[in-house]
Amino acid sequence: MDYKMKIKKIAFLLLMTLITYGTVSAQTKNPLVRIAKLQIDPAQLDAYRAALKEHAETAVRVEPGVLTLYAVAEKDNPANITVFEIYADSAAYQAHLQTVHFKKYKSTTKDMVKSLQLVETDPIVLAAKQKL
Amino acid sequence: MDYKMKIKKIAFLLLMTLITYGTVSAQTKNPLVRIAKLQIDPAQLDAYRAALKEHAETAVRVEPGVLTLYAVAEKDNPANITVFEIYADSAAYQAHLQTVHFKKYKSTTKDMVKSLQLVETDPIVLAAKQKL
Repeated sequence: MDYKMKIKKIAFLLLMTLITYGTVSAQTKNPLVRIAKLQIDPAQLDAYRAALKEHAETAVRVEPGVLTLYAVAEKDNPANITVFEIYADSAAYQAHLQTVHFKKYKSTTKDMVKSLQLVETDPIVLAAKQKL
Repeated sequence: MDYKMKIKKIAFLLLMTLITYGTVSAQTKNPLVRIAKLQIDPAQLDAYRAALKEHAETAVRVEPGVLTLYAVAEKDNPANITVFEIYADSAAYQAHLQTVHFKKYKSTTKDMVKSLQLVETDPIVLAAKQKL
């Protein structure tokens, strides 16, 4: 009887583990992956970079569905900025648009951004080691 | 005496941990971050995607200095592919070019790639949760 209870307990824990694992996998099964291409006013580049950095770090830290925000400047033209964005799914992206930090970023930078192009993508492979 | 030995052992382990941590941090202090933009022959797109996927997964798995290879296709033009690449440093990238899997990828895909543009970048922020 005692053994049977133990087996039942182990089976229950295994089942819960599988369910939990399935849920976590589902969150990243259909990630929304996008590339944002921006041209920034060169005179305001330092301020823009600071606002972008603060926004990206906050979003990845506090929002469960914001998985990756990698922002880089072209070496040959630092006013050309690319952001590689991964959200858990489109609901996570919609939630992101409603956050206080996103709205603050948009209002702070609205006169710094000369152009913004959003390129929707389908991921082919997302291979990465642990967090940098 | 026994206690002194234990304290020495703990101090030694702490020191090694700090040294290791310092080294790991140094590896990603000056990451080489690059964007590759490719146009693929539409007739060979499936074969190209398979070769790219295999190459990226292998490189990130076996090479300590290949940190991220994210490849995506534009939804509006799937033959336009962007790869967001992060290497620990330029030495890691040079080592990558010499690997068997990279050479295999290059030879397999040489007639599939219509154009390749490499954009060198300076990272502004690389914010990410744990591995997807």
